[in-house]
Amino acid sequence: MATESFTDVWIAPLTPLAFLERSLRVFPDKTAVVYGQQRWSYRQFEERVRRLAGALAGAGVQPGDRVAFLCPNTPPLLEAHFAVPMLGAVLVAINTRLNADEIAYILDHSGAKVLCVDTELAHLVAASPASLPNLALTVTIADVQAGAPGQRLDGPEYEAWLAAATPLEQPHAVAETDTISINYTSGTTGRPKGVMYSHRGAYMNALGEGLEVGLTSTSRYLWTLPMFHCNGWCYTWGVVAVGGTHVCLRKFDPATVVQLVQHEGVTHFCGAPTVLIMLLNSPAIKQLKLTTPLHIVTAAAPPSPTILQAVEDMGAKITHVYGLTETYGPHTICEWHREWDELPGEERARLKSRQGVPYIHAGGLRVVDADMNDVPADGETMGEVVMRGNNVMKGYYRQPEATAEAFRGGWFHSGDVGVMHPDGYIELRDRKKDIIISGGENISTIEVEQVIYQHPAVLEVAVVAVPHELWGEVPKAFVTLKQDSQLTEQELIDFCRARLAAYKCPKAVAFGDLPKTSTGKIQKFKLRDAAWQGFGKKIN
Amino acid sequence: MATESFTDVWIAPLTPLAFLERSLRVFPDKTAVVYGQQRWSYRQFEERVRRLAGALAGAGVQPGDRVAFLCPNTPPLLEAHFAVPMLGAVLVAINTRLNADEIAYILDHSGAKVLCVDTELAHLVAASPASLPNLALTVTIADVQAGAPGQRLDGPEYEAWLAAATPLEQPHAVAETDTISINYTSGTTGRPKGVMYSHRGAYMNALGEGLEVGLTSTSRYLWTLPMFHCNGWCYTWGVVAVGGTHVCLRKFDPATVVQLVQHEGVTHFCGAPTVLIMLLNSPAIKQLKLTTPLHIVTAAAPPSPTILQAVEDMGAKITHVYGLTETYGPHTICEWHREWDELPGEERARLKSRQGVPYIHAGGLRVVDADMNDVPADGETMGEVVMRGNNVMKGYYRQPEATAEAFRGGWFHSGDVGVMHPDGYIELRDRKKDIIISGGENISTIEVEQVIYQHPAVLEVAVVAVPHELWGEVPKAFVTLKQDSQLTEQELIDFCRARLAAYKCPKAVAFGDLPKTSTGKIQKFKLRDAAWQGFGKKIN
Repeated sequence: MATESFTDVWIAPLTPLAFLERSLRVFPDKTAVVYGQQRWSYRQFEERVRRLAGALAGAGVQPGDRVAFLCPNTPPLLEAHFAVPMLGAVLVAINTRLNADEIAYILDHSGAKVLCVDTELAHLVAASPASLPNLALTVTIADVQAGAPGQRLDGPEYEAWLAAATPLEQPHAVAETDTISINYTSGTTGRPKGVMYSHRGAYMNALGEGLEVGLTSTSRYLWTLPMFHCNGWCYTWGVVAVGGTHVCLRKFDPATVVQLVQHEGVTHFCGAPTVLIMLLNSPAIKQLKLTTPLHIVTAAAPPSPTILQAVEDMGAKITHVYGLTETYGPHTICEWHREWDELPGEERARLKSRQGVPYIHAGGLRVVDADMNDVPADGETMGEVVMRGNNVMKGYYRQPEATAEAFRGGWFHSGDVGVMHPDGYIELRDRKKDIIISGGENISTIEVEQVIYQHPAVLEVAVVAVPHELWGEVPKAFVTLKQDSQLTEQELIDFCRARLAAYKCPKAVAFGDLPKTSTGKIQKFKLRDAAWQGFGKKIN
Repeated sequence: MATESFTDVWIAPLTPLAFLERSLRVFPDKTAVVYGQQRWSYRQFEERVRRLAGALAGAGVQPGDRVAFLCPNTPPLLEAHFAVPMLGAVLVAINTRLNADEIAYILDHSGAKVLCVDTELAHLVAASPASLPNLALTVTIADVQAGAPGQRLDGPEYEAWLAAATPLEQPHAVAETDTISINYTSGTTGRPKGVMYSHRGAYMNALGEGLEVGLTSTSRYLWTLPMFHCNGWCYTWGVVAVGGTHVCLRKFDPATVVQLVQHEGVTHFCGAPTVLIMLLNSPAIKQLKLTTPLHIVTAAAPPSPTILQAVEDMGAKITHVYGLTETYGPHTICEWHREWDELPGEERARLKSRQGVPYIHAGGLRVVDADMNDVPADGETMGEVVMRGNNVMKGYYRQPEATAEAFRGGWFHSGDVGVMHPDGYIELRDRKKDIIISGGENISTIEVEQVIYQHPAVLEVAVVAVPHELWGEVPKAFVTLKQDSQLTEQELIDFCRARLAAYKCPKAVAFGDLPKTSTGKIQKFKLRDAAWQGFGKKIN
């Protein structure tokens, strides 16, 4: 009906680059980045970003080229989140907890042209097992504030390189569907896959997260969450969108976090429950007197009643979200209803432990059976969680088949098994490959673990399927106890019996440390593999 | 570099329809709409929306068809904001203050297929001067709560029509660039132009406004701003996005507003300073004890120091924004810096009176000379304010030439004259056609008016150019005094002399009422025309 012309006037590409442009204009003298004694205004930060972009351009980086960073949560990685896209190039922020072999794989697979690496991590690439023919330049970041631990590689040092560069004048004209970053998944098995984010998706997520947690220009965001995780759930861009302040953090340490929350007036941070447990159990937490409202966003596992209580006692607010690398970090949020505040603590914890509903900016979310039919919204029938919309990845880099497999039926398949509650909230039950099928019944290992976590002596637990003559599979619990705590196998089984159907209770319990990935994920497959040796099944 | 396939998985059209879908899922039992004694949950509201969509479909409304509403801020108009787009059709919310001739022009020009009209406004279309061959159906809305004042027209009554309809099952699959609404401008002269909004623009504005004013699911938005103004600045959609509550208001009345703010726990409302003046000067305001934070958003004119003080005394927060129908309502916001809180009241008022910077989601904003060069950012050099980006209209409906003229040089020309301050904030000086050129010097009538407004006896003022033998043009002030106040021409000129350069001071003052449009805009051209009769110039 209408003329579709003049779209250049009324359609601007959705890109996080617009956020920096605006905050430079509106808040040039406001603190953009705090790192230890260092404080950069938006004017200074933006100039550093343009210097980095200029330096990268000088190194021959073209639109579409990949630029890798192996760096803790320090300012250079934040700068890269704007400088790399300014060239139309693609940021690859590598997980710093990977080993040399995994990092070499990512550098090779992404074909990165430039790598910037912190001295402390330089040994991981110093003798790379891959030949890396695309890698034209390696830049070493010497964090003088941290004493520049580790080693310098051949090639320029980051600060000198920036100082010598000509700041980029004219950013590349990006399209909103262009790839802004590739984030390699840290799966518990197999080679990592390169998850491609678009400018549009990054923009929408940054705004959507900001809207949900109430980011404003007075927000001060503390970097407890690694920036290499889904580009820090897009807070790298979201905090700049509102003109807030980034508080960088080289290494998570409870005392430092408490000190920063207190003295930098931190308003928001994100972290897995394990991070919160470390924080809340540290002696330093007793020093914390909140002078400004603090909002904590947690994912990866439901916050336990203990955590919820401790956060409440602190005077902070906690929000439970869920997502994957493939969904730019969070896709769902346990959206809170005001009337739930009136419920008893246990009931509130139960409601809060659900993964919830899509973010406002997120698209579809379903729980489906193998034929892509919705499972009944009964809170019991399990199915796979699938998503679509503006915060689903573009696909896996250079893996069209894996992309097609993940996107089969027109939805992204999370690999997570969950239920749909009658009120439209989802709750995860398991990873698809972790679920236990015992005598024909599905058992959610998460459900069993949640019960075991209620035992006061338990610090950590993983439940996996082990072989059983009669039932095929049965649950076994691997438990780490809290310091100075005691618990017997039978006591724990009895504890479960009082709270769970008999068939769901572990038939055996082992005590000890749990195997984990470099990012701290428990590697259930290792526990399982040991149990299934010789049974030719359940081996990943 | 990357496969661009599977875009149906990772690109969802940006449309406000997604907001209703989500809030229905997340907050089905939460109050979506309050109107007097009426309270509808999201489940009820969404059902009414689908009923309306079904009824419209039954009346033959197809994608692209226009559906007109002539209705105060009551629930049916809110319902239309979702039901009409659900069919892929285009909402035309007509200004209720227009006369029968103007309304007939809009119905004719838009070619509306269906018109829904409130009984109180039915007389404006009862004997339409236009033949309206496209208009297939007229529905009368009888607001029983208000006693259904006025008359019923031929055709169904809204509630009965909805009750008889089959709720729409499957919304039309919209593209984000589709037109969602046409808003006819209420210019001070000439025929109104039909400003086309896209789904994408409406979506981005709804989210952007929500982010700026902190809308959440606990927000309760009071409808003091007409929904026919830029679709209520997109709050029609934005409040639903966060799962907030709409508090409808048939007619602005200070006592009712105070009562609703108090008893419905209103958190946000919008309005021009004239609306605020009426509210703040009413005796009812003394009854108001805020129990929840109140955020007022104002536009159309800078809030005076008096208003700012009164709002502060109330314990509320006020934000100054600026935009046009062509920019979905607000495009700029006087983004506040926390450190400005420490400044003296007069300085704060000066800063707050500036129109500011683009919203986070808004695109470019410049002040340019006739050759599209930026004027110096000196806070003095005047130029035209031009905009672009996702909150600029698609164009004028069925007026390609007017669209091309407005979009010349690749920017939307606002027709507003302003300055760019050194800190990147814009401040309006005048409408392009109102500016006074006296002896070669530009005089901003707004600047002169702002000084005159500081006089305690002045209620309202308009300054226009009148002919002068020596200077060509000079300023003349037309002043309405406050009740029981007195002021002479010479006293007011002296007052200006003490505060303005001599050439900017009015050379004459007239006292009396000011001519206004149906929407309350002062018609300067009428004052000017009278003065220029016989001079062959400055006649609009």
